[in-house]
Amino acid sequence: MKIIEFFELSIGRWRSQRSGHHLAFAHFEEVLSTIDIESLSHDDPAVQEICKLYDADLSSITHPFRMTWEGESDWDDKPISGSTVLVPIPDSENHSTGKLLREKGYAEIIPAVGKYHLSDDGIFTLVTEYDLAAAEERIWFANPNLRFRVSLIKTSNGKGVTTASFSSEIRSLSSSTS
Amino acid sequence: MKIIEFFELSIGRWRSQRSGHHLAFAHFEEVLSTIDIESLSHDDPAVQEICKLYDADLSSITHPFRMTWEGESDWDDKPISGSTVLVPIPDSENHSTGKLLREKGYAEIIPAVGKYHLSDDGIFTLVTEYDLAAAEERIWFANPNLRFRVSLIKTSNGKGVTTASFSSEIRSLSSSTS
Repeated sequence: MKIIEFFELSIGRWRSQRSGHHLAFAHFEEVLSTIDIESLSHDDPAVQEICKLYDADLSSITHPFRMTWEGESDWDDKPISGSTVLVPIPDSENHSTGKLLREKGYAEIIPAVGKYHLSDDGIFTLVTEYDLAAAEERIWFANPNLRFRVSLIKTSNGKGVTTASFSSEIRSLSSSTS
Repeated sequence: MKIIEFFELSIGRWRSQRSGHHLAFAHFEEVLSTIDIESLSHDDPAVQEICKLYDADLSSITHPFRMTWEGESDWDDKPISGSTVLVPIPDSENHSTGKLLREKGYAEIIPAVGKYHLSDDGIFTLVTEYDLAAAEERIWFANPNLRFRVSLIKTSNGKGVTTASFSSEIRSLSSSTS
């Protein structure tokens, strides 16, 4: 699989089943959500703003997208929802590695730059370092309509892991995003 | 990471937290268990028996081990427990790929031969095909005392996935296996 294919396959509506493991206490969290991944054009205002924020050249980016999620956790009565815009910048020499610019990170509510690579196995790994923590995500497709995602929240030195979560994401074929 | 390191790091007692996703119904299963992975010598009777069963030469094998698990699921009152012996046979030319002989498979109670490979990312993938299903496992270490495992049960054509599970496995440093 090429990275372009990976980004293109990701577009769509996904029904996500997520299990969180809080490692120190062996606690489980269960989340059901809907995730929409929507392709954006290079001249979308949100994309232009992110490029400006990071001082990135519009010609260096590829496949920008918006991710929106809405769901419920068994740990919290309040619905979980959010949205973020992500902008990949492939490394010029090697298109299976690059940077991912993001409006907001998972672990902290500030802009974040992650580094990604796609392995020879078709596993996309994204590592994002924050001030006090680091996040590592691994995403791969079992088939075009089913993908898996493992997310780790690590201590800032990258050695300890505080939480790990696993998502099974099934493409929703029944309806278009509203 | 080399495959030898992978097998050696796996030896020990692990506290496992596993979430099962039953994809069609978005059901969750929660399992807590203890897994013991114990190195066996080449002349262990169980190892010799497996080699005989598969007509494998003892000189072709490496790092045979016994895996024993004992735990509880929130889906079932009965404790989950079992044990199996596994015997890796590296491909002669390329040591990051090989076969894994197994006394008993997960999906069916018959002997099974899996094919493994270790990616450049250090992710060990094992694919085992049965008559009516296939199993795919991915295992990797976050650090020497923490590993993750994603297991899929697939339809026999390998395209559909019926269940996916995710395990966080923390090395138990407190006591030796009794």
